[in-house]
Amino acid sequence: MKPIGPYTFETFKEKVAAFHGYPAPGVIIGGYMVVLAQEKIPRDVLFDAIVETPKCLPDAVQLLTLCSYGNGWMKVYPFGRYALSLYNKYTGEGVRVRIDPDRLKAWPHIEMWLFKTQPKKEQDSDALFDEIARAGADICGVAPVQVKEEAMKRFSFGDIGRCQKCGEPHPVKFGEVCKACGGESPYF
Amino acid sequence: MKPIGPYTFETFKEKVAAFHGYPAPGVIIGGYMVVLAQEKIPRDVLFDAIVETPKCLPDAVQLLTLCSYGNGWMKVYPFGRYALSLYNKYTGEGVRVRIDPDRLKAWPHIEMWLFKTQPKKEQDSDALFDEIARAGADICGVAPVQVKEEAMKRFSFGDIGRCQKCGEPHPVKFGEVCKACGGESPYF
Repeated sequence: MKPIGPYTFETFKEKVAAFHGYPAPGVIIGGYMVVLAQEKIPRDVLFDAIVETPKCLPDAVQLLTLCSYGNGWMKVYPFGRYALSLYNKYTGEGVRVRIDPDRLKAWPHIEMWLFKTQPKKEQDSDALFDEIARAGADICGVAPVQVKEEAMKRFSFGDIGRCQKCGEPHPVKFGEVCKACGGESPYF
Repeated sequence: MKPIGPYTFETFKEKVAAFHGYPAPGVIIGGYMVVLAQEKIPRDVLFDAIVETPKCLPDAVQLLTLCSYGNGWMKVYPFGRYALSLYNKYTGEGVRVRIDPDRLKAWPHIEMWLFKTQPKKEQDSDALFDEIARAGADICGVAPVQVKEEAMKRFSFGDIGRCQKCGEPHPVKFGEVCKACGGESPYF
C-alpha cells in the first residue's frame, strides 16, 4: 500500500472519513494526485491550486495543502475533469496532474469508478480500495502548465453596504438590493 | 473568551491557522455562527449547509461539520452575505445564522471588519480578536428557514465519456468536447 505524502494509506483514509464524512475513493486517489503535484513543483514556491471538478478532489487539496475553498487559494472549475494544478501564485507556472485513462488498463475497478460503467452500489468497494492503494500515482499523467492571468486574479467583493430591502450587509457593486432579495434566494 | 463548541478560542484559532493558512477573523466568527446553528437544529438531524459567501465562512463550516465543498453537503452561493444555514437534508427545514449589523454598536472593530470601513492593514488586529472572543455569537441573528427543493438537489455530472479533442474523461452532457477544450481553460 503506497503512502500518501506523510500518511500511510490507512491513516489518510481515516483523515478523509473525518473531513469528508466517509472514505471516498475519489479523495484518496486525489491524495496521490496532490502529493505528486507537490513533488513536481519547487519546494519553496508559494502555490495556489486549481481543481477541475467540484466532486471529491477539492477535499484532497484541502486536506494536504493550505489551499482551501474559504481562503481562495483553491479555485474550482466545474468541468467534471478529474485533474488539478498547483502553480506559483505570482508567476502562474505550475504542474497539472490528471488521471490518465490510458493507464487504467491494469486497474479495472478504478476505470469502472472513473467512467461510472457500473452503478456505485454495484461496484466492489474492497477491490477498488485495493487497486487505489497499489496503483498510487501510477495512474496519473503530469504536465507543466502556465495559468492565465485572469485565472490568477484575486477576487474581491469590494465595498460593503446594506441591502435596501432586507438591510443585510452585501457588496454594493451588486446594486441596491442583495442577490437574495433580487430573486436568487435558496429559501422560501 | 467564549469557547467555540468543543474548542477554546485559542485552540480553534490554531485549527483555523492550520487549515486556512492563517487565523482569519472571519473563520473564527464563522465558528461561533456554525456552533449557534448546530445548537438550534435538532441534534439527530442529518443536515446540509448553505453558505452565502465564498469568503472565509465556508472554512468554518468545513472545520466544524462534516459538510465539505468536495462532498457537496455544503453549497456556496456567491452573494457576499455573511450568513449560513444548516438544514435537514430531507425536508429542507433549518436555521439561518447571520451577523446582525444592528448588534455591532458595542463592537466597533467587528463592524469595521465587516463593512471594510478601514483597509485591512490599518485595522487593529488584536482589538478585533479581543472583540470576537468576547462577543461570541452575541452579534448573530438567527431565523428559521425553509430551503427550496431546487437548492436541495444533489447535482450529478451523469455519464462520463472522453473528450473528442483532448481525450480526457469528462461529462458527456457537456458535449463532444470538454469545457476546457471548448474555450474555458484557465491555462495557456
